[in-house]
Amino acid sequence: MPNMKFQPLPGFRDFAPQEYAFRAYLFNTWRRVAHRYGFVEWEAPTVEATELYLKKSGGELPTQLFRFKDQGERDITLRPELTASLGRIAASYQMDYAKPLKWFEIGSCFRYEKPQKGRLREFVQFNADILGDAGEGSDAELIALAIDCMREFGFTADDFVVRISDRDVWIAYAMEHGVAEDKVADFLSVIDKFERDRPEVSQQKLDAFGMKREDLEAFIKNPPAGCSPRYDAVYAELQARGLADYVKLDLYVVRGLAYYTGLVFEIFDKGHSLRAVAGGGRYNGLVSTLSDGAVDMPATGFAMGDAVIAHLIEACPAARALRDAALKPDVCDVCMVLAAPEMRMQMLSLASTLRDAGLRVDLPLAPAKMNNQLKRADKIGATYALIVGSEFPEVELKTMATRQSVRTDLEGLMTELLPDAD
Amino acid sequence: MPNMKFQPLPGFRDFAPQEYAFRAYLFNTWRRVAHRYGFVEWEAPTVEATELYLKKSGGELPTQLFRFKDQGERDITLRPELTASLGRIAASYQMDYAKPLKWFEIGSCFRYEKPQKGRLREFVQFNADILGDAGEGSDAELIALAIDCMREFGFTADDFVVRISDRDVWIAYAMEHGVAEDKVADFLSVIDKFERDRPEVSQQKLDAFGMKREDLEAFIKNPPAGCSPRYDAVYAELQARGLADYVKLDLYVVRGLAYYTGLVFEIFDKGHSLRAVAGGGRYNGLVSTLSDGAVDMPATGFAMGDAVIAHLIEACPAARALRDAALKPDVCDVCMVLAAPEMRMQMLSLASTLRDAGLRVDLPLAPAKMNNQLKRADKIGATYALIVGSEFPEVELKTMATRQSVRTDLEGLMTELLPDAD
Repeated sequence: MPNMKFQPLPGFRDFAPQEYAFRAYLFNTWRRVAHRYGFVEWEAPTVEATELYLKKSGGELPTQLFRFKDQGERDITLRPELTASLGRIAASYQMDYAKPLKWFEIGSCFRYEKPQKGRLREFVQFNADILGDAGEGSDAELIALAIDCMREFGFTADDFVVRISDRDVWIAYAMEHGVAEDKVADFLSVIDKFERDRPEVSQQKLDAFGMKREDLEAFIKNPPAGCSPRYDAVYAELQARGLADYVKLDLYVVRGLAYYTGLVFEIFDKGHSLRAVAGGGRYNGLVSTLSDGAVDMPATGFAMGDAVIAHLIEACPAARALRDAALKPDVCDVCMVLAAPEMRMQMLSLASTLRDAGLRVDLPLAPAKMNNQLKRADKIGATYALIVGSEFPEVELKTMATRQSVRTDLEGLMTELLPDAD
Repeated sequence: MPNMKFQPLPGFRDFAPQEYAFRAYLFNTWRRVAHRYGFVEWEAPTVEATELYLKKSGGELPTQLFRFKDQGERDITLRPELTASLGRIAASYQMDYAKPLKWFEIGSCFRYEKPQKGRLREFVQFNADILGDAGEGSDAELIALAIDCMREFGFTADDFVVRISDRDVWIAYAMEHGVAEDKVADFLSVIDKFERDRPEVSQQKLDAFGMKREDLEAFIKNPPAGCSPRYDAVYAELQARGLADYVKLDLYVVRGLAYYTGLVFEIFDKGHSLRAVAGGGRYNGLVSTLSDGAVDMPATGFAMGDAVIAHLIEACPAARALRDAALKPDVCDVCMVLAAPEMRMQMLSLASTLRDAGLRVDLPLAPAKMNNQLKRADKIGATYALIVGSEFPEVELKTMATRQSVRTDLEGLMTELLPDAD
């Protein structure tokens, strides 16, 4: 690579066509599975009023925002996530759609974090949400969608696990153990960090609640049967769908954000070597909050990022094989080759005819040696080279994979290239 | 719509699924035609160092930038266009690709302008560029692509025109009329405004060059034959492709930006009632400028925005009909209907089987009346309703369009829904 002065900003990525092909593979996979589940696509503005995020989070803004003043002195922010916009837009447009809404989105988000493995400043999230239904059927449908995305990428139950939890189990636990109502949120945030904090740090935090970390560990390891009827209902639905092997009740999971209510979940690689590849849960109060009470819709959703999944695919042979098959250069069906310069106009006319018939056609833009033209056909992955020479309208159709050629007139050519056309 | 406190920012748009469907129609059309021309997709970061745009424009930055300081005090800008990023990325990655590069991009750009018809603060551009070839064959290929995008949307030669011009014609004119070399850029910017300025304003500007606007008008109306060999070459190639009816030599067009060299063009609706729907041209020096001379690649490209084309489609019956056909709700193949609540698990299992076979399947997430379930099937545009009741594994398959039903066992169902499967 030449010594370029202009690199992308730290944490931002360039997608030259080879890199874009992987991006398209992710997007197409997410889209295909979401459509199979009857979800429809939506999109938010890239920039929102900062106030929207303030409102969503109850006044505590994350510190890693790309937040600034526009030329009209508005306080605006590059979206750090999509749920705030979703709540706003769903509240505005919901009456035009059959309930529950099953909506998905694929788009860039921005966070000013220290760039590292699986963490970028501009990253893509696949968001899927069900709004307008409070039952476990929606949670199960959503988790099934997340699992099937992973399966579509080539992962099996040996590669990943969906850790499902229920915040209400912890709220009940807190109540039973005498935690004051206004301290429950603090208690949840101790549990949220429980797995990552050093044991003495956890214990120190738990002292405030008169609890022992050993007791919590024991509770997490052996949650009492029936502690989460919600989890049991979701599990039964996933079992009926043949997806029980992918999930477990895991009370370590709480999800940091204050707006979650009830069931929450995260997807991790089995080795738990990376951050969560996806996370989500119920957020029944958010649409009401964002619409000042005008619209009240229970909701459940998750987001899956593009950075962690890229690492997981790289580490899993089956997923890598699917990816590599999708990334093979496949730019064109027919690469025109001009063997006689005086036939250029005839070659152009023929190329137009083939393109009008829907074929993907490349052609020499400037005079070039036959050999170089054939090399290009190889490099861009063309199925055929179509050689136009002085014998035109007789042409030579060369199958690149076998190097075999047939000579044919134009009618024969169309029959060869478009066997299904009338 | 409820009285929502949170609207999108002025000039930004929400895409609820119905609005997104139009967006997808634009994107899919652009992608399909670009692929047919052998172009491959790439993508730039949404944010770049402001310096990149400064470098591109030779120090004169547009005033309508979303420009700000990030948390690390970097001067950064939401991309107002894609060509600067393209030059940077193409220079960095070009050695991995067969030349010439034929690259396209579809993505958001941001300009702080007064929002009005066809002008937004966040809009989408389709960018197509050919890098690494200086000949007219590339200009013709690019213009043909632009024309075929318009045709694919349903427009004909009665609806739009590609106005092609050649800056070198004006540079030669300036030289012949004694314009000093360091004033040629000023002269070009007078021509650029010639069509929009009031006559007396144009004349006033031309006084500095000792020219009469009548002489220029006469020159534009009757350009001397052969004044642009470049245009003649492009015209011949377009004629061979059957696209001559869509173009004309039009010396009113100059394109404001300083980095254009040689051939430039703009696409307008025939009534010229709106801004240009697309514009572009040669920019042979830009890649070298952006790479500090490390990589020198001649280039030609154009951009087509999503805002003007939306208005043109709305105004053209044939284009509107194509659009409306593409926007019909088509969310799912099979909408499951649960007639006997105790069969829920069987219904879920069957839905999973159908989804695994690739069908798009919606299902009732919570108990609902038969009637309401069938209404949903209608509303989301399902092809079939699949009624699971107490007779399961006998089920009822209802074709929504005809309201006709068949009762079948599961084997018969699969044959009906997936006739091509083994």
